[in-house]
Amino acid sequence: MGEEFAVIGKRLARPDGAVKATGAARYVVDIKLPGMLVGKVLRSPYPHARIRRIDISRARKLAGVEAVITIDDVPPKTFNSGLAHIRLAPPLAKKVLRDQYILTDKARYVGDGIAAVAARNKLIAEEALRLIEVDFEELPAVFDPIEAMQLGAPQIHDSAPGNILQHMSYLFAAGDVAQGFHEADYIVEETFYTSKQRHSQLEVGAAIASFDGAGKLTVWSQSQSPHVTRRGLAELFDMPEGMIEVITPYIGGAFGGKSALIIEPICVVLAQKTGEPVKIEYSREEDFLVLPGREPFIQTVKMGIKKDGTITTLQTKIIANAGAYMVSASSIASFNINNFFALYRCPNTAGEIDIVYTNMLPCGPFRGFGNPEAMFALEQVVDMAAERIGMDPAGFRRRNHRRAGDPSWMASLPIASCALDECIEAGAQLIGWEGKRGLGTAKGKSHGIGMAVMSHPSDIYPVYTGHTGVFLKLNADGSANLTVSPVEMGQGSLVALAQIAAEELGIRLEDVHIVTGDTDVTLFDIGTFCSRSTYVCGNAVLRAAREAKGQLLARAARKLQVSADELAVSNGRVYVKRTPEQGLSVAEVAKDAIYNYEGEPLNISGSCSFESTAVSPSFQAGFVEVEVDTETGEVKVSRVVIAHDIGRAINPLSAEGQIEGAVAQGIGFSLLEDYVINRGTGETVTDNFTTYKIPSTLDLPDTEVIFIERPDPAGPAGAKGVGESALVTVPAAIANAIHDAIGVHMKELPMTPERIWEALKAKEIAT
Amino acid sequence: MGEEFAVIGKRLARPDGAVKATGAARYVVDIKLPGMLVGKVLRSPYPHARIRRIDISRARKLAGVEAVITIDDVPPKTFNSGLAHIRLAPPLAKKVLRDQYILTDKARYVGDGIAAVAARNKLIAEEALRLIEVDFEELPAVFDPIEAMQLGAPQIHDSAPGNILQHMSYLFAAGDVAQGFHEADYIVEETFYTSKQRHSQLEVGAAIASFDGAGKLTVWSQSQSPHVTRRGLAELFDMPEGMIEVITPYIGGAFGGKSALIIEPICVVLAQKTGEPVKIEYSREEDFLVLPGREPFIQTVKMGIKKDGTITTLQTKIIANAGAYMVSASSIASFNINNFFALYRCPNTAGEIDIVYTNMLPCGPFRGFGNPEAMFALEQVVDMAAERIGMDPAGFRRRNHRRAGDPSWMASLPIASCALDECIEAGAQLIGWEGKRGLGTAKGKSHGIGMAVMSHPSDIYPVYTGHTGVFLKLNADGSANLTVSPVEMGQGSLVALAQIAAEELGIRLEDVHIVTGDTDVTLFDIGTFCSRSTYVCGNAVLRAAREAKGQLLARAARKLQVSADELAVSNGRVYVKRTPEQGLSVAEVAKDAIYNYEGEPLNISGSCSFESTAVSPSFQAGFVEVEVDTETGEVKVSRVVIAHDIGRAINPLSAEGQIEGAVAQGIGFSLLEDYVINRGTGETVTDNFTTYKIPSTLDLPDTEVIFIERPDPAGPAGAKGVGESALVTVPAAIANAIHDAIGVHMKELPMTPERIWEALKAKEIAT
Repeated sequence: MGEEFAVIGKRLARPDGAVKATGAARYVVDIKLPGMLVGKVLRSPYPHARIRRIDISRARKLAGVEAVITIDDVPPKTFNSGLAHIRLAPPLAKKVLRDQYILTDKARYVGDGIAAVAARNKLIAEEALRLIEVDFEELPAVFDPIEAMQLGAPQIHDSAPGNILQHMSYLFAAGDVAQGFHEADYIVEETFYTSKQRHSQLEVGAAIASFDGAGKLTVWSQSQSPHVTRRGLAELFDMPEGMIEVITPYIGGAFGGKSALIIEPICVVLAQKTGEPVKIEYSREEDFLVLPGREPFIQTVKMGIKKDGTITTLQTKIIANAGAYMVSASSIASFNINNFFALYRCPNTAGEIDIVYTNMLPCGPFRGFGNPEAMFALEQVVDMAAERIGMDPAGFRRRNHRRAGDPSWMASLPIASCALDECIEAGAQLIGWEGKRGLGTAKGKSHGIGMAVMSHPSDIYPVYTGHTGVFLKLNADGSANLTVSPVEMGQGSLVALAQIAAEELGIRLEDVHIVTGDTDVTLFDIGTFCSRSTYVCGNAVLRAAREAKGQLLARAARKLQVSADELAVSNGRVYVKRTPEQGLSVAEVAKDAIYNYEGEPLNISGSCSFESTAVSPSFQAGFVEVEVDTETGEVKVSRVVIAHDIGRAINPLSAEGQIEGAVAQGIGFSLLEDYVINRGTGETVTDNFTTYKIPSTLDLPDTEVIFIERPDPAGPAGAKGVGESALVTVPAAIANAIHDAIGVHMKELPMTPERIWEALKAKEIAT
Repeated sequence: MGEEFAVIGKRLARPDGAVKATGAARYVVDIKLPGMLVGKVLRSPYPHARIRRIDISRARKLAGVEAVITIDDVPPKTFNSGLAHIRLAPPLAKKVLRDQYILTDKARYVGDGIAAVAARNKLIAEEALRLIEVDFEELPAVFDPIEAMQLGAPQIHDSAPGNILQHMSYLFAAGDVAQGFHEADYIVEETFYTSKQRHSQLEVGAAIASFDGAGKLTVWSQSQSPHVTRRGLAELFDMPEGMIEVITPYIGGAFGGKSALIIEPICVVLAQKTGEPVKIEYSREEDFLVLPGREPFIQTVKMGIKKDGTITTLQTKIIANAGAYMVSASSIASFNINNFFALYRCPNTAGEIDIVYTNMLPCGPFRGFGNPEAMFALEQVVDMAAERIGMDPAGFRRRNHRRAGDPSWMASLPIASCALDECIEAGAQLIGWEGKRGLGTAKGKSHGIGMAVMSHPSDIYPVYTGHTGVFLKLNADGSANLTVSPVEMGQGSLVALAQIAAEELGIRLEDVHIVTGDTDVTLFDIGTFCSRSTYVCGNAVLRAAREAKGQLLARAARKLQVSADELAVSNGRVYVKRTPEQGLSVAEVAKDAIYNYEGEPLNISGSCSFESTAVSPSFQAGFVEVEVDTETGEVKVSRVVIAHDIGRAINPLSAEGQIEGAVAQGIGFSLLEDYVINRGTGETVTDNFTTYKIPSTLDLPDTEVIFIERPDPAGPAGAKGVGESALVTVPAAIANAIHDAIGVHMKELPMTPERIWEALKAKEIAT
């Protein structure tokens, strides 16, 4: 692949755009199988309760009910609904907890599944749930992680005394933090509280399970990790993986929330019991009640600095509110701490995490995976430190951030490329950083500007086995079917993969047809998350396409009576480099390969199993301007500039879409979104979009995006990740802008009008 | 692959057996898509009529009708519903006629499609058909091919004066037939009439077409040649092949009758017009009316023989009744004539075919593809010749049949292996040939015994491009997903392919999971017909499995610290050949390859694009015993022995099933089945299973099967074809047995009681 690109770098429309816009795209909720039953789950109304007795006899007798199940009917095995069924890399191997049964006899949060039914239709299923009689023994509940760790707190899991699920220390801690603080001229120490944002996917949670007569299980799932879902089900149900097929059609939004095993296990049990396909489709309220949310952290950050801006020490202590089950709580906290320390050079570092069970809804991965929370704390502390020594925060960051050659978030692996300086410069210039700071007014609508930076890995290597397989075949029309693993959940990485294939094969984007979403067909891939699809799968696509191209050129060479290395291919045409008028269309060569009787027929194809062995974090500088109403505390984000070190923007249009979406979700996280429960009853207050508000397009400013393209040596065509990045910088940048506007540091998310108003009042009283 | 097999040659149950027996298998008729409309076709009630005017306005206004189409709405392009959209090999290239529009303004048979509707449900669609007003100009019709060729006969297609669709001569004619007849001591000359058997598949004809919003067309089809269906639709609708996906789920019987383009084109037009998925599902009557049947031939065979049994000349003249459109009429006739001459050594040969249009239902491929008809004639003539010179018919055949090294049906390519002598010997011995002949009685129930032999190619090479592609991947449980092209239409070749993969990979049959039925996923394959799947695809599977095995052994070698060539694999275990206790399970190696973080991760896989370059006809001797009721003319087949030269029986159970099914279909063809029309009106008399009788299990004798296994050098593990064979020998063997019982040669199919009674009467009168 040369440096002059025909397809890569172009703002090309996504092939799935029209399919979705016209309503032709099919999601799990759209799928109907013959004889399919409706599954419904009976959920605990209490946050903490033992089930003394459960009587399902009346429900079972109801006409049209095909199965009623309780804990007695599910495999006597615990599981973890996250990625725990994939082994971690040895140096990072943590105790992975499988702390959950498919149905429970001890409810640990409001919504915990107690029983389930399969019935001919939804109304019968709902009536059957009403006929199940449960005798609950209510237990005292605890929702706050600090309270949960206190002596005498309700004990949620027998295996976790004091409700401490796990304690972890920062793996790559270095130097001596005490000495570092001793050497510092100033110390900044603050505590930050982040909230339980919901993923708010438009498609409600749903799954279907169906057994064929030979015992093969097919699951229609919204999983972002279909191969892990397959493995998890295999372990849970003691089935060989090969007897399980996980199909992931279009997914109506995921953002990390569609983990490996959530709805699927109950579906499978019901399908086993009834011998019929069973679909569970959540109502919006149930979706809010049950699908894991973002992990709330209490982060105490302490930084030592010298007058010249040198960071001498960095320390973080985290208390994570895991909720009722582990899911991915430890991985997220660990990712938080590793990325926390990955951004700035500092000789003395230390970090500690307590992950605590409470009677809250569990936490799953969420776009950013702990990094937005880490940066919400760190990047405010950086602003405070810069302010303390009277340095421009942009300059402070430029002075201290890590660069190429420095250790990455995996301390053993160096950063391959870093264009954060250019990001800071370009972003600052576009937003007009110089001269806009400090213009806040005490009264009325006060203007503020703020920034934050971040680094974020482009893959999970080397934490998990991050390899990915690709298969590609050429059709007789010169088009290619590209079989790849990423699921299409709105993110648009498939268009980038198609562009990489098109570029290498010298064909048009519209001639690359993606095949995905079926574990019987796709090669192994750990999943669609961690901003990794373009980076890792793109590399695999490039290599598979190269193999097919080799066959294409070899056949064309025979026809043109030249050697293959005299040939090039572009615009759907193979031609002789020195006499470009001499050539053949790709379609001619591919068609001839398939259909020509004379000669050796061949369906040109290529395959590749690839694992990245580099760490190529992307970097970003995010800038925002806000207007704070000092009377009401309301914040309006008036401008967002994101400068992102993307290595190479394979499809700038789609990459911008990712930035824009993440900005929106970042603004929601910053200002609006939290999962609120009634602390008395444990019941969910925010269980639909009238009580849980996400920003609408009218709430959002235009996002100005700058891509800094300095090709990374390990990325396909130099590309690095982009998907999560803006959600990492935006909350901290907004907090810093609010501080610029009104002089208060907002240390708790979301930064609601009430909290800002209270902070202003407190400041008034203090001054 | 060694000569000692662990999986090959075993009578293992088909993986799809349980799926079908439990009703879990899904067929096109089972598939329901959201928003799917019902398509129905208005068909001509006249065998030959011009449409003066068609008024669809009332139909269009009916509530719930989404589209009404006529010839004005279909592409102004002709097509051919057979394999004509694949180029023939140059030496055999014939004029391929595309003589059919999707809907017509001139009906050429009762059932010809004139208009179609798509509506919200079946009742509305049927009502809409009733509301279409057609002004027909009835034209004189002709059903008999000889009448059709006469001066003044109705002209069916403007392009075919005298209704002669095509005239062909035998391509490999040799010597001088006149001279041959001159040298002969005796000449036998007879004319034979074969009938229009119906495929009688249990699943009625059905198809679904659906466009997504991006213009991609997905077709659910019963096609035996999904890749050809894709190509045909691409040509017809001017779409790139890559924008069309043909999905073939389980098919409820095909037998050649599910050609490339039958129901699909109308579905596609209706889906285009409505923007919604459209399904057409035939009623049983419509299925009989429209799906092409077997091609009836009038064959005049002339053989010159010497007293010593030498055949001096062989000549055949064929008149084929193509019906209203070409479909595969020429290919079938050409296959008839090539196989006719492929069986016996003879220096002087000549053959001529006239393929004639009539106002009958068109003809499609049907199990045997002209060879049963050829043998019905030839093998009776052989018996007559043997009788004339007083030679045992078995001995006559043994003396004259071609053997390894002789030219095959493709004269340029030699026969690779031939065990026909052993077939004749083994079959004759089992049935007790010696001493059972000539025991017929003039009155009451008369016993007879007869035999016939045949050769049949195991592939269509070199007529069409017969290559096939296979992709295979290993799962972490040591199982494999094997992506192959053959559709599962009941024949069971998939189990043989799975056994070949299992054998080569050293795993169990149940650990090979077949993936098929989706052109987006499978590599090119011309189709599932001509007894070719095990032979051709089996070779591709073998090579793809070998590639994967190479990766498997290489990784195991690294773990076991030996070199790969010191290793073997069987029973799911890789072991060191000289110290077999040292080893690893395939699952361990495969799982480690996928999941192990340390080392190079890999989803072990293999792919292969294979074309056979040999012709490996299978041979067969079929023996039957019959009891003829001389009072009623009724024939009971009391015993069938089939000795088949299969090369290697990959799965004897499933191969026997193929023989048994073909015997049943052969008995039906011989005694019961014909598509009867009213010669006055052209209307179908036999349009369901009460008027068109097929043999039930109660009508069938047990079939005794002998496989002669002499591995063919070109077949996978030595295997040759089997699927069609018994339908080729049975009709001629029954005719010869009837002659043995009652002394009359039955020269017309089916050999009904009426015809036998009449022949007996004629014989009585003559003697």
